[in-house]
Amino acid sequence: MKTRVYVTLKNGVLDPQGKAIHHALEGLGFSGVNDVRAGKLIELDLADNVGDADVEAMCRKLLANMVIENFRIERVADAAPAA
Amino acid sequence: MKTRVYVTLKNGVLDPQGKAIHHALEGLGFSGVNDVRAGKLIELDLADNVGDADVEAMCRKLLANMVIENFRIERVADAAPAA
Repeated sequence: MKTRVYVTLKNGVLDPQGKAIHHALEGLGFSGVNDVRAGKLIELDLADNVGDADVEAMCRKLLANMVIENFRIERVADAAPAA
Repeated sequence: MKTRVYVTLKNGVLDPQGKAIHHALEGLGFSGVNDVRAGKLIELDLADNVGDADVEAMCRKLLANMVIENFRIERVADAAPAA
């Protein structure tokens, strides 16, 4: 079973990567960009017996830094490709 | 207007970061993890006059490396938080 984990910085946490992307977009001439926040998308291919509690534990122990990041778990039907 | 861009590696492209996460999860004792693919989630806060074509151009020129990455653009209603 396919599961996606979205890891994003908590509000108020400085995002130097987002700032750099924002600056680069403006340098390329793109206007109308008010803010950019960079995060992580982790796609897990899991056995069917791996439950939500296990995935949550993976996030808390490894995938997200709970001090500065939030995470969101999304179970994906096999058919929907990420991109 | 809030827009999310999901950047993922194309199939077949080696993902060392995903491999490292996979290895670390197993080291922490998590079983049932068949594969891990790491990608990027970029949240853009855009002015209303920035159209889909502009966002696509941002992706092609900067946010995604078109040789090895795919991207998917998602327009977000203001209410839905990312995580």
